Amino acid sequence: MAVQISPLSPKTIQELPPLSGVRMATAEAGIKYKNRTDLLLIVFDEPANVAGVFTRSKCPSSSVDHCRASLSHGVARGVVVNSGNANAFTGHKGKQTTDAIVHTAASILKARENEIFLASTGVIGELMNASCLLNLLPNMAAEAEEGNWLEAAKAIMTTDTFPKLATRRFDFGGEVVTINGIAKGSGMIAPDMATMLSFVVTDAAIASDILQFMLSEAVQGSFNSITVDSDTSTSDTLMVFATGKVTGNSLCLTSKSDPRYKAFTKQLSELLHELALQVVCDGEGARHLIEVSVTGATTDSAAKSIALSIANSPLVKTAIAGEDANWGRVVMAVGKAGVEANRDLLTIWFGEHRVAVNGERDPDYSEEMMSTYMKNQHITIRVDIGLGSGKATVWSCDLTKEYVAINGDYRS
Amino acid sequence: MAVQISPLSPKTIQELPPLSGVRMATAEAGIKYKNRTDLLLIVFDEPANVAGVFTRSKCPSSSVDHCRASLSHGVARGVVVNSGNANAFTGHKGKQTTDAIVHTAASILKARENEIFLASTGVIGELMNASCLLNLLPNMAAEAEEGNWLEAAKAIMTTDTFPKLATRRFDFGGEVVTINGIAKGSGMIAPDMATMLSFVVTDAAIASDILQFMLSEAVQGSFNSITVDSDTSTSDTLMVFATGKVTGNSLCLTSKSDPRYKAFTKQLSELLHELALQVVCDGEGARHLIEVSVTGATTDSAAKSIALSIANSPLVKTAIAGEDANWGRVVMAVGKAGVEANRDLLTIWFGEHRVAVNGERDPDYSEEMMSTYMKNQHITIRVDIGLGSGKATVWSCDLTKEYVAINGDYRS
Repeated sequence: MAVQISPLSPKTIQELPPLSGVRMATAEAGIKYKNRTDLLLIVFDEPANVAGVFTRSKCPSSSVDHCRASLSHGVARGVVVNSGNANAFTGHKGKQTTDAIVHTAASILKARENEIFLASTGVIGELMNASCLLNLLPNMAAEAEEGNWLEAAKAIMTTDTFPKLATRRFDFGGEVVTINGIAKGSGMIAPDMATMLSFVVTDAAIASDILQFMLSEAVQGSFNSITVDSDTSTSDTLMVFATGKVTGNSLCLTSKSDPRYKAFTKQLSELLHELALQVVCDGEGARHLIEVSVTGATTDSAAKSIALSIANSPLVKTAIAGEDANWGRVVMAVGKAGVEANRDLLTIWFGEHRVAVNGERDPDYSEEMMSTYMKNQHITIRVDIGLGSGKATVWSCDLTKEYVAINGDYRS
Repeated sequence: MAVQISPLSPKTIQELPPLSGVRMATAEAGIKYKNRTDLLLIVFDEPANVAGVFTRSKCPSSSVDHCRASLSHGVARGVVVNSGNANAFTGHKGKQTTDAIVHTAASILKARENEIFLASTGVIGELMNASCLLNLLPNMAAEAEEGNWLEAAKAIMTTDTFPKLATRRFDFGGEVVTINGIAKGSGMIAPDMATMLSFVVTDAAIASDILQFMLSEAVQGSFNSITVDSDTSTSDTLMVFATGKVTGNSLCLTSKSDPRYKAFTKQLSELLHELALQVVCDGEGARHLIEVSVTGATTDSAAKSIALSIANSPLVKTAIAGEDANWGRVVMAVGKAGVEANRDLLTIWFGEHRVAVNGERDPDYSEEMMSTYMKNQHITIRVDIGLGSGKATVWSCDLTKEYVAINGDYRS
């Protein structure tokens, strides 16, 4: 199957600035793919503080197990990421593979094993031959360079059609700091999270526990508010590393009441949101980006349940693929969300066009106007529940024949 | 789009025997479809006892509102069903349409308004022109005949590709009684329930409260255990009517401890299961019937959550469409179900083939054997969770490009 770049991809791929303190190398390990890179090594020559969030799957990969267990140490020296094989549900042998990667990377980087993080993405349940990967690591460590962000983003792609990068540069208590981030993921994307990998590095100095608070806040409106297909992967990993190279450790941010806390969290939230939207825009087979906003629910949590019910509904998603303003299916999705709603109080907009009000179609509804609107690549659906002040916004993409084609033939 | 009959349809369409006490007529009202029947009238010349279960949508149609409110009276004299327009989310005018149908049918049949039941299925949110329908009812009432079950099943179809019928004949405390049932539904099918309509009539004499108990039991393993796309309609309606024509009212079943209670419930369960499977086999675009059995969960309810998580996963369903034994996605779906599971205790079978055990692929796994198995029309997936004795079985169908084509272009 010829891979076409998603029509929702950014017009240009961003160049990220080099970040001092972080070096990267990529290689072709041939794990599954041929003639492309599939291995990424990130090296922190001095320990970086680290925070992470992971899949809530009850069947996580052993990479996720290792990262979660190592996080309490709070320090990272290296990250190994491969694409092509998720090393998930590979039992005892898979655990041995994880251990071998961690052990090898730790000895090359002269680090402790709980300072090495790793992630694998690709097919589940097939044993990964780690030897090809392990042999490459010493050279990669030697040759890793500052910069290389675009190459890093490419090496972790699976069914992605474009590399995903974002950057922010801003004042951090008198110093200008940078946050760089990369991500991958295009199917199995649902909140909490999906086969979604993202690695974010800043040169600001932030204590690991504070970094974890920031990440937990920032992930809510970004990676925890997107869904491609409601499926959640065994391997989701989002990690943030702070090298402290700019601020220096004497000025390390160690308290939530420090005014820099809010400033950094805001920038991190925006960067993660930008990456998350790139992930949705590369949703398998996606032709339309869908933004679903729910207001007037009894609580924020009820609003999110309703928004996700709409964003995950196959009938809503296929209607948008067919450029059909089928708001009746939005009513259906509100009704099935399982939280309080009253059909006669609902108001529904597609873009600026109010399509339903007072329990029926808007008197000014125009099929012609809606047909024109539905040709947009970015469709916004807003539903006011009319009961309270709870609100939420989530992002998704449409469900096309290409999604079925891509996923009906992934392993072969 | 040319409509092809589902490859999973029964080889032959059943003929149902006439049932004394129930007459039916169909007509072409032209509500949406041309050159086919779209209106069904069921007449009980003497009051029948009635029970029903309805959508759990918080935004039900006004037909559902009327039926639910009338059920406590426990008696039915007529049922009006139309296809082509769901009369759902049509506000005050939609309610007026419902009232007009009920009022007209009641006066024709010389019945009370709460003895008339109705259901509408089709597009949501568009006003239904009831006049064409109302004008036809007097003639239909006059011409209604015993028998006509196949015509009735055809008149209520929407995107269905074949009419759905089932019958049972059995001993009921010394008398031979019959249960006949029809159903429709092929998308928006999920437990509790979906754009699923089903009407079942028996000539046994059963009190309405007892009939309601039986129905509530029988629906669990049938219509509440199927899912096509996880979407739940605003209009789901399943009603059972007991005319008592065979047994006569003196022998009416009025107690759960009557030995006939169990016998009838068993037959009703089997009949509903047969109808429910026909609905799944006509799932939009379906090419494979999927049976998902979960054993060894902590509770039956946890088992059902896991089974539905598998049966609703777009990635599992597209893999089966692609005839790919991608059991890694089954692990993923177990993990995301949100109930207790341990990846290292899972055992997974496709058909008789054990594909995964002890947290990894089965050592005897054969890709060739699995490729052959996946060509079957009926795919069974069994997962043992290894934690307890909870179990559940649900049925679904695969997710094909045809599903997307059908639903991307439904209104136009």
